[in-house]
Amino acid sequence: MSGTRPLIAIDWGTSSLRGARLDANGHVIESREFTRGILTVPPGQFEAVFQELFGDWLQLPGALCLISGMAGSRQGWQEAPYCPCPAGFAELGQHLRWLQPGRIALVPGLSFLGADTLNTPDVMRGEEVQIFGALQLAGRDNATLVLPGTHSKWVQVQGGRVTQFQTFMTGEVFALMSQHSLLGKTMDLQGAFDEAVFLQGIEQSQQSGSVLHHLFAVRTLGLFERLSAAQLPSYLSGLLIGEELRQQAVLRHPDPVLVIGSPALCLRYTLGLQHLLIPCQSLGAEATWAGLLALASSCAPS
Amino acid sequence: MSGTRPLIAIDWGTSSLRGARLDANGHVIESREFTRGILTVPPGQFEAVFQELFGDWLQLPGALCLISGMAGSRQGWQEAPYCPCPAGFAELGQHLRWLQPGRIALVPGLSFLGADTLNTPDVMRGEEVQIFGALQLAGRDNATLVLPGTHSKWVQVQGGRVTQFQTFMTGEVFALMSQHSLLGKTMDLQGAFDEAVFLQGIEQSQQSGSVLHHLFAVRTLGLFERLSAAQLPSYLSGLLIGEELRQQAVLRHPDPVLVIGSPALCLRYTLGLQHLLIPCQSLGAEATWAGLLALASSCAPS
Repeated sequence: MSGTRPLIAIDWGTSSLRGARLDANGHVIESREFTRGILTVPPGQFEAVFQELFGDWLQLPGALCLISGMAGSRQGWQEAPYCPCPAGFAELGQHLRWLQPGRIALVPGLSFLGADTLNTPDVMRGEEVQIFGALQLAGRDNATLVLPGTHSKWVQVQGGRVTQFQTFMTGEVFALMSQHSLLGKTMDLQGAFDEAVFLQGIEQSQQSGSVLHHLFAVRTLGLFERLSAAQLPSYLSGLLIGEELRQQAVLRHPDPVLVIGSPALCLRYTLGLQHLLIPCQSLGAEATWAGLLALASSCAPS
Repeated sequence: MSGTRPLIAIDWGTSSLRGARLDANGHVIESREFTRGILTVPPGQFEAVFQELFGDWLQLPGALCLISGMAGSRQGWQEAPYCPCPAGFAELGQHLRWLQPGRIALVPGLSFLGADTLNTPDVMRGEEVQIFGALQLAGRDNATLVLPGTHSKWVQVQGGRVTQFQTFMTGEVFALMSQHSLLGKTMDLQGAFDEAVFLQGIEQSQQSGSVLHHLFAVRTLGLFERLSAAQLPSYLSGLLIGEELRQQAVLRHPDPVLVIGSPALCLRYTLGLQHLLIPCQSLGAEATWAGLLALASSCAPS
């Protein structure tokens, strides 16, 4: 616990900005959300925007403020360089970028060099806090986690430290295919989520062949009237999430995979994982606050 | 040969319209190209647009006009229903959709029901003519062919008939990722084609893991300054074409794969295939005229 200091926990991402004020016992007193992602903030204006939206909270005596997410990227407030894996709380705490010593800090993201022949790098910013929060909430220090989103992250944790992770562009590819591709022209994006059709997509993606081929079925199943325009988005979603899960289906997961994200995405990933007989458990936004709270305790002395 | 009738060969696609006038011996006398793909033609205006652009050719005594491509789709001039595979010249000839009996016809596309559990359908329009033309030019009636493009086609031909084919959305995904995704923001699309970097992408795509993950490397290799902004498009191209070729790399191709398309795309596919030790031979736009000419001979009696 963060001892006697109140915590201002901030998640400042690319497209949104969320904050919570926690008391000395770690309870959320108040939370705020704005569509003021870093893309909306002109260079040099981060401090002013932050003061405008959270200035009142900063005046609380002894408050500690931790900011995770893209605010710590090169395009953000200041750059908090990536902390290389394996990394746990200790490494994150050591690499905090203090904007006001002992009062306001940016949390660094994590980097990982892949085991492929090119040692291709991978990165995350913001998810690391959710990961450590989820581990606390689930009472685990060994786990496989998935954080679905625009860029999904699959993460391995051993002994409380992130040992490796991989990013999948699943959410962004779904958005591009439904909004800008030929497939989008025949899809009804307002169609309600269709679980059976989604699972048909999951199933198809496990068959041999490439996702670049499977995607074309979104067009032909519409053309041959095998699926309606309203069902096509669920099929596309199943194909892409299924492609992401394909590797996992061949691994043995003795413990439940932790799924962390919005309720809508957690539902889809849980359905997909269960369909592939992979045990899982889902957690929501509370993981962010739990993670920042745990990080606050580890740097409480200041 | 088409006997004594001159042929007007037309390829009317989604975004472009090409035509050639061939003499009774099959030589191209004149060719024309317009940016008047079917998407630019209002419903009901196809005949008027066609008369405007090719009316003079139609007045040649005894001329036969064959039109392949999306002009025969539901969104085109009139629908020429797909001809199911296996299909060869005979089936195409039988399924011509005559707009003026014996004078002007739309060539049907091909359809194929996949061997997967859902029997997912696949379709092509326009490529079938290029395939039969390429077979004539190469003097083969058994072949594996690839027609790279927005939607690449991989085709099996046995005994002069298309027995199966698969579409890959490679070209469209490349366009979407480079123009609309986060990856596009850090890429210099004017960068010259870099063969070594392209082959690095081909190589990476053959490693285990999903293309949805490999794509993210376009971002991180830029972020870590391992590739320049100008090199990133070549890497992305290699990743996606490599993903398309992955299945082929495990098949044995005793005879050269026939690659049919624009010189720039043929170069990339040839480089990729050779890198994966798959023999290949490339052919250009002449395949379309050769195909329509051969089809004209098969329906010459009219």
